Amino acid sequence: MKIAIAQTNPIIGALDYNLEKVACFIAQAKQKQVDLIIFPELTLTGYPPKDLLEREAFINHSLEVLDKLIGQTKDIAVICGCVERNFDHDKPLFNAAIFFHNGQVLLRAHKMLLPSYDVFDETRYFAPGKSPAWIDWRGLRWGVTICEDIWNDKDLFPRQLYKCDPLAQLAQANLDVLINISASPYHIGKPHFRQYMLSYLSQKYGFPIIYANQVGGNDDVVYDGNSLIALPDKTFLIKATGFEEDLAITEFKKGRGIKIDTSLEEEREVLDALILGTRDYAFKSGFKKAVIGLSGGVDSSLVAYIASQALGKENVLGVAMPSPYTSKESLEDAAQLAQNLDIQYQVIPITDIFEAFLKSLKPFFDELPWSTAEENIQARIRGNILMALSNKFGYLVLSTGNKSEMAVGYCTLYGDLTGGLAVISDVPKTLVYKLARYINREREIIPFRVLTKPPSAELRPNQRDEDDLPPYSVLDVILQEYIENRRSVKDIIEMGFPAHIVKEVVRRVDKNEYKRKQAPPGIKITSKAFGYGRRYPIVQKYTDFLLKSLG
Amino acid sequence: MKIAIAQTNPIIGALDYNLEKVACFIAQAKQKQVDLIIFPELTLTGYPPKDLLEREAFINHSLEVLDKLIGQTKDIAVICGCVERNFDHDKPLFNAAIFFHNGQVLLRAHKMLLPSYDVFDETRYFAPGKSPAWIDWRGLRWGVTICEDIWNDKDLFPRQLYKCDPLAQLAQANLDVLINISASPYHIGKPHFRQYMLSYLSQKYGFPIIYANQVGGNDDVVYDGNSLIALPDKTFLIKATGFEEDLAITEFKKGRGIKIDTSLEEEREVLDALILGTRDYAFKSGFKKAVIGLSGGVDSSLVAYIASQALGKENVLGVAMPSPYTSKESLEDAAQLAQNLDIQYQVIPITDIFEAFLKSLKPFFDELPWSTAEENIQARIRGNILMALSNKFGYLVLSTGNKSEMAVGYCTLYGDLTGGLAVISDVPKTLVYKLARYINREREIIPFRVLTKPPSAELRPNQRDEDDLPPYSVLDVILQEYIENRRSVKDIIEMGFPAHIVKEVVRRVDKNEYKRKQAPPGIKITSKAFGYGRRYPIVQKYTDFLLKSLG
Repeated sequence: MKIAIAQTNPIIGALDYNLEKVACFIAQAKQKQVDLIIFPELTLTGYPPKDLLEREAFINHSLEVLDKLIGQTKDIAVICGCVERNFDHDKPLFNAAIFFHNGQVLLRAHKMLLPSYDVFDETRYFAPGKSPAWIDWRGLRWGVTICEDIWNDKDLFPRQLYKCDPLAQLAQANLDVLINISASPYHIGKPHFRQYMLSYLSQKYGFPIIYANQVGGNDDVVYDGNSLIALPDKTFLIKATGFEEDLAITEFKKGRGIKIDTSLEEEREVLDALILGTRDYAFKSGFKKAVIGLSGGVDSSLVAYIASQALGKENVLGVAMPSPYTSKESLEDAAQLAQNLDIQYQVIPITDIFEAFLKSLKPFFDELPWSTAEENIQARIRGNILMALSNKFGYLVLSTGNKSEMAVGYCTLYGDLTGGLAVISDVPKTLVYKLARYINREREIIPFRVLTKPPSAELRPNQRDEDDLPPYSVLDVILQEYIENRRSVKDIIEMGFPAHIVKEVVRRVDKNEYKRKQAPPGIKITSKAFGYGRRYPIVQKYTDFLLKSLG
Repeated sequence: MKIAIAQTNPIIGALDYNLEKVACFIAQAKQKQVDLIIFPELTLTGYPPKDLLEREAFINHSLEVLDKLIGQTKDIAVICGCVERNFDHDKPLFNAAIFFHNGQVLLRAHKMLLPSYDVFDETRYFAPGKSPAWIDWRGLRWGVTICEDIWNDKDLFPRQLYKCDPLAQLAQANLDVLINISASPYHIGKPHFRQYMLSYLSQKYGFPIIYANQVGGNDDVVYDGNSLIALPDKTFLIKATGFEEDLAITEFKKGRGIKIDTSLEEEREVLDALILGTRDYAFKSGFKKAVIGLSGGVDSSLVAYIASQALGKENVLGVAMPSPYTSKESLEDAAQLAQNLDIQYQVIPITDIFEAFLKSLKPFFDELPWSTAEENIQARIRGNILMALSNKFGYLVLSTGNKSEMAVGYCTLYGDLTGGLAVISDVPKTLVYKLARYINREREIIPFRVLTKPPSAELRPNQRDEDDLPPYSVLDVILQEYIENRRSVKDIIEMGFPAHIVKEVVRRVDKNEYKRKQAPPGIKITSKAFGYGRRYPIVQKYTDFLLKSLG
C-alpha cells in the first residue's frame, strides 16, 4: 500500500487557495498510485484560524469546501484536517480529521486534548473529542489522532496537562498504525525532540506512527514540517523536508526503515525558520519587497541577509539614515553590507529633520539636560522615513530589534520598533552574532568589522550598549532562565549571577510589557517568545513585591 | 447577622498593596460589627493576573499572603478570592474562594465554569472545580460560587457553553443563601443585565444571592462593581456603587428588600467607565499627568475632558500641532477647549519639521503625486513630539482614535495611534458625539463648533472624513452588526445597507488587523472590543474568499 504525507503550507482562511492546493497534492499522489494521502491539522482553514472560527459564515464556508473536496476526490483515500460542528452543549466546534474515500466518510476523529498554553487557544473554540477514533481499513487497524493527542505521555513529560492519554487508550485497541495530523510550531530543537518523541512512542506501543505536520509561517509562528513515519525499531520509513512544502510518498510495508536525523546545525535551523517566516509573512500579506533601516550594526545586517534570502536580493532596499552620532565606520559598514548582499541601498541623513525637531521643542526643553527624549526623537525620525517609503512605494518595513533589547526595553517605541514584521525579535543578541558568523562561514557577507566592534545604538556621542546593559553574554543567559525556563529570580541568583544584575534585568523585563504590546509581530524561534504566547498584564506590580521580598 | 460586601480595586500582582487593602476593609467592617465580609474573585492577586500565574514564585507568594490574611484576621468571617494549587493532572491551579474564620478554613470553593472567550483565558491556567461547594454555618446553608459559575442558566442563555450548571446543582442542596464572588468586566448595559440576571436567578431558585464584584481598571478592561444582594421577591437588600470602591454593609434577614435600578444613562455609564479606566491605568502604572494632541476635533476634545476628570485638570497638557492643512477654526477650537477645561495648553507647529522631511525625501519621492505617505508623515511627526514630551517630562500620552477609525484603519500607525492608552478606541464615532453632547448638557465645555463642523483629519487641503468613509451613522451600525453582533456580511446587506458599502467596510476591518496589533491598549466599553478579546490572524485571506463568494 502506498502512503503519501502531504506537508502543505496553507494560507489562513484562504479556503479556495487551500482547497486548490489540496487538490493539486492529491492529483500528484494519484499519478504515483498512492492509496492514502494524509494532510495536516486544519488544512482547509490553515492553522491557527483564531477568531475566524467565531464567524458562522466561515464555518459554513469551510464545511462547504470540505464537502466539495470529498465530492470531487475519486480513487484515493484521504485524511484531512478541518473543523466540524458540535451540536451538544460546550464549545460549538471540533478540531477534526476526516478519513474519506470515493465520496464516503469512513471516520471522523475529534481532537481530544486541546492545548491552551503558550500560543495555543484551542479551548476558546473547540469542545474535546469524546473518545479516540480508529478504523479497520484494508486489513489494518488505523488510529487517527490530532496533534496534542499524542503529547501527554506519562514517561516523557513530568506533568500531565490532561487527565487522559488518547494514545494509551488507542494502544489497547490493538492498532496496526497510528496516524497523527498536526500543526506543530517550530522552536529551536523542536524538530529533533519531535522526532525523538515519535520514535519513542512507536517503540513503546509497537506500531508505526505516521506524522503529517503543517509547514509555513503564519503571523508570528513558523511550522517546520519535518513530517515522517516512525517505526517501532527506531528507524523511519520516510521523512519530509523541513521548512518547505513536500509530498512524501512511501510503500507502507512491514520491515526495517532507515535511520534519519532531522537535526540541523542550530544556526541553519534558525535561519531556515526566519527566512520562511519572513517569506510567508510577505507573500501571504501581498508584499513583494521590503525596506530595512541599515545602521551598520549586526542586527540590521542579519535582517537584511534574511530578507534577501526570503524575497530575493532585487526586492530588498537598505536605507542608512545617519545622524550626527553615526560613526563613519557604521555608514561604511552599512554600504559594504548592501554591496555584499547586492541589495539596493540609499542614504537619507536625518540631521536636518532632527534639528527641526529640536528647534520646535526648544521653548519646552529649554536648558534641560540631554536625555532619552533626544535619543528617541532620532529613532522615531527613522521610523517615520521608513514608513514614508513603505506608504509611497509599497515596501514591507522589517524591524530589526533582537530579543535581548525587546526583553529589557532597550528599543524605541515607534522608532526602531517600527515595522510590519520584527524578523529577529525572538533571537537573543548572542545568537544574532552566532547566526552572523554562520552566514560568514565561507566568505564575508556581513562585514567582519560589524562582528567585532562593540554594539551601539549611536543615539548620543560614544554610546555603547554595555554602558546601559550587562554584557550580552550575561544578559542572554539570565533572560533565557527567566523567560524560557521560567526560573525564579532567587534561583537565577543562586546559579551565580550577581543579585543586583538579575534583579535589574527582571525589573526591566516586567516593566517594558507596554513596549512589547505595541511591537510588530515577531517570528517565534524559542520555546517562549514575547507576543501571543506570553500574556502579561501591562500594568502589574508583582515585580516590586518580589524584588522587595528579596531585599 | 451583618454582612459586608467589600468591593475592592486591587492592583494586579501587588500582593502587599492588595493584602493591606483587604485588611483595611476588614478593620472597617469589624468596627461596624460585621459577621461576614465577602471579597471579589482573585482579590489578593487582582484579576486577571494572566501569565503571572505561570510563575511559581508568584503562586507561592500569593499563598503566603493568603496564609498571612487567614492568620491575622480575628472575630469576623471572611470569604476571599485567591488561587489554590491543583495537585492532580490537568492545569496546576484552581480559581478559589476561601471561607475562613478565626484562623480556620471552613470551606474551599473551586470555580467550576472557566470562561475562555473574549478577554477570558481561564482554561489557560485553571483546572475546573469538581463539585459545587456549600456549608452550613450559623444556622444557614451557604453556597459559594465564583463568577462564571452562575452564567450558564438554560433559560437565560440560548446556548450553554458548559455541560453543567453549578447553580442548578446547588439548588438541589436546599441552600438558604448563594454567594458569588466575581470579576465581571464592564460593557455597555452589562450592569443592568447582571442585576436582571441576579434577580431572575434569585426568584427562580428562591434564595438570596450575594454578589461581590471587583471594581477598577486593569489594562484594557474596566470592572464596574455594582455588587448587590438580590432577593427572591424581585427586591434587593443592598447595592454597592458603580465604578468605585465601596464597603456595602447590611443586616441580613428575611423579608422584603428595596427596589433599585443600577441603570444609568448610557452616556454617564460610559463616561464613568472611561474615566475610571484612564485614572487606574495612570495610577497603577505610576503616571500623574497626561499629554494629549488637540486637533480641535471631537475625539481629542472628549479625551481631554476624560483625562481632566480622571487625573485633575492641573495634570493635563493639551498640545496643538498645526500643519499647513490645519484650519484656523480647528486651532481656535483646540485653544477654546483647553480654556474651557482649564488645562495647560501649548502650540507646537509642525510645518518646519514636515518641510525638512519632504526635503530629505525629495530625491526619492521626486515628482510622484501626493499620497497617504505625505499625510502619514504629519501624523507621525505629531506622535514623535508627544512622545518627546512624554520622555522629557513624564507625561502619559493618551491617544485619541475612536473605534470607527480603528475598525477601518482610518488612522496612522506610529502617528495618531501613538500613546500608552487609547482612551476611546472602543467608542464608535456616533457615541463620541453623544458623549460630547452629554458633557455639554449644562454648559459649553466642548466648543459647540467642534460638534457641528464636519470631521476631518486635516492632513491634506479640504479633507473630510466622509470623502474617505461612509457617513458615520451608517458606518457605525455596520460595524456594530459585524463586530459586536457577529452578523454575516450577507445578513447585514439584507438589513438594507448597500452591498458595496458593507463589503468595503468589512474588507477594511479585516485587512487592518496589522494596525490594531500595534495599537495602544484601549478601554473596553462594548461587548466586543478590539484587542485582547478579539484575536484575529494578522494575515488571513478569508475576506477575499467571502467577498468573492458574494459576487
